Amino acid sequence: MSTAVLHCLPSGAADARRLAERLGLPLQDIAIHRFPDGEIRVTVGSAAPASIIYASLDRPNDKLIAILFAAEALRREGAKRLVLVAPYLCYMRQDAAFHPGEAISQRTVGRLLAATVDRVVTVDAHLHRTADIEAVFPGIEADNLSAMPAIAGALAGIDSATIVAGPDAESRPWVSDLATRLGLACAVGRKIRRGDRSVEIDFAGQPAVAGRPVLLVDDIVSSGGTLTTCARTLTEAGAATIDAVITHALFPPEMTGEFARAGIRSVRSTSSVAHPTNAIPLDAVLAAALRRELT
Amino acid sequence: MSTAVLHCLPSGAADARRLAERLGLPLQDIAIHRFPDGEIRVTVGSAAPASIIYASLDRPNDKLIAILFAAEALRREGAKRLVLVAPYLCYMRQDAAFHPGEAISQRTVGRLLAATVDRVVTVDAHLHRTADIEAVFPGIEADNLSAMPAIAGALAGIDSATIVAGPDAESRPWVSDLATRLGLACAVGRKIRRGDRSVEIDFAGQPAVAGRPVLLVDDIVSSGGTLTTCARTLTEAGAATIDAVITHALFPPEMTGEFARAGIRSVRSTSSVAHPTNAIPLDAVLAAALRRELT
Repeated sequence: MSTAVLHCLPSGAADARRLAERLGLPLQDIAIHRFPDGEIRVTVGSAAPASIIYASLDRPNDKLIAILFAAEALRREGAKRLVLVAPYLCYMRQDAAFHPGEAISQRTVGRLLAATVDRVVTVDAHLHRTADIEAVFPGIEADNLSAMPAIAGALAGIDSATIVAGPDAESRPWVSDLATRLGLACAVGRKIRRGDRSVEIDFAGQPAVAGRPVLLVDDIVSSGGTLTTCARTLTEAGAATIDAVITHALFPPEMTGEFARAGIRSVRSTSSVAHPTNAIPLDAVLAAALRRELT
Repeated sequence: MSTAVLHCLPSGAADARRLAERLGLPLQDIAIHRFPDGEIRVTVGSAAPASIIYASLDRPNDKLIAILFAAEALRREGAKRLVLVAPYLCYMRQDAAFHPGEAISQRTVGRLLAATVDRVVTVDAHLHRTADIEAVFPGIEADNLSAMPAIAGALAGIDSATIVAGPDAESRPWVSDLATRLGLACAVGRKIRRGDRSVEIDFAGQPAVAGRPVLLVDDIVSSGGTLTTCARTLTEAGAATIDAVITHALFPPEMTGEFARAGIRSVRSTSSVAHPTNAIPLDAVLAAALRRELT
């Protein structure tokens, strides 16, 4: 028996398989049986001393419960160390009570996972007000990997006139990292809220995009509103072409039509969340962080 | 501000309202907003030193996550004591690994809730191999109330020739308790497994049901298979009528047609799980157990 095994939830099987191959690890499915009454039964394969669970946490509630069950079974079957690989980490955006009585779900999920596994490995976690990923997971190891090396690799040979653009200050880290890696100029917008539901994005003071190809970058696209608004602004500003690249594609696939109408020629995402726009595998990035588990 | 408040998840609002009125407590909704990407945002009302959460745990996974979030918010807003009222307690049936690698979900859910609240109040928990409810919730108070007083109350005036019947040994506690309360004879069947999917129920050696009204009793009806098989056996044995009364109705409402074809004239359930068969409110039973929180 190997000293380490990769276990995966059904939803991540294809990505987990690539990762297991790269690491030379056996891959075992975590089987989930759904009863008609809404309960689930979780069955794991044989545990190794180091058991790595691959479970990206989009549509997270069912998966969180499945991870708790899988961890219980793996510990009982002999796992001494549990590592959760969650390329997309859920609930990171609710990191404060924005209104009275609101749950700070980031905190709850952080504590829950910290009580369940010994290490969490994630990618481009959306940590807005939280200093770093270790603060989310009290008492355990946690790694917030960057997808930017993988994204930059996939964009090798990009037109050197391209401007890397992000919609708002929150996107700046990804935008400036990627622009530096690709040796390109960058432009970061500013969100201006006009009333409750109307947002504009302003690129005043940023490098002009007129006549140039634009690569629009963000970490998460969920409702798609920010990406659409930003693309309209860039189109109006005369961008020659707009292509988008994102780490976590949470939006409904049918939204690509709306993106196209806003002037976006293509959307590419990493394999973090299984999605029709997936074009950039993360297995090399994840494997590098997991190699030390294989001793 | 009251020293105690009842908070309820959206699914249990009607039953929680009756309970709050009986206890003279303010009722506050736990609001759950569902984002398109599958995450939820939970918002609670003002916390009291004793905050009671009403959340029956049928279709449990989303609700378990919502309870964790609500508990975090209530603690932060000043709740010193959290009591979970879950008339139906999920995952109690998976109390062992029946096959290699199976998670013992009873254990995981028990520990999860024990780490979240200070007391759990439930009704007719399905504890097959577990000594008592306190063993499920290490370190906190737990009460496993009986629905039988409420059910007996609803059946007052029942035909004294009625036989109270249960399908198998697991139903014996409910059957004999209810028969004693109503002063009726009882009959408990024996499950005989014939191959993988075929089960028969045998009433050999039990009081004869021929020509007599039968009251079929069980704690949980989920797939409905046991109830149907049992009713067919009782019909063949010549039961005059068959009425069923159960604590937790987890079966899909459209299954009542199948019950009717098996000879069941009526199905009544307690308010534990919101269901078209609900006929027996549990608020008196729950209120009696909660009164000591109101000091």
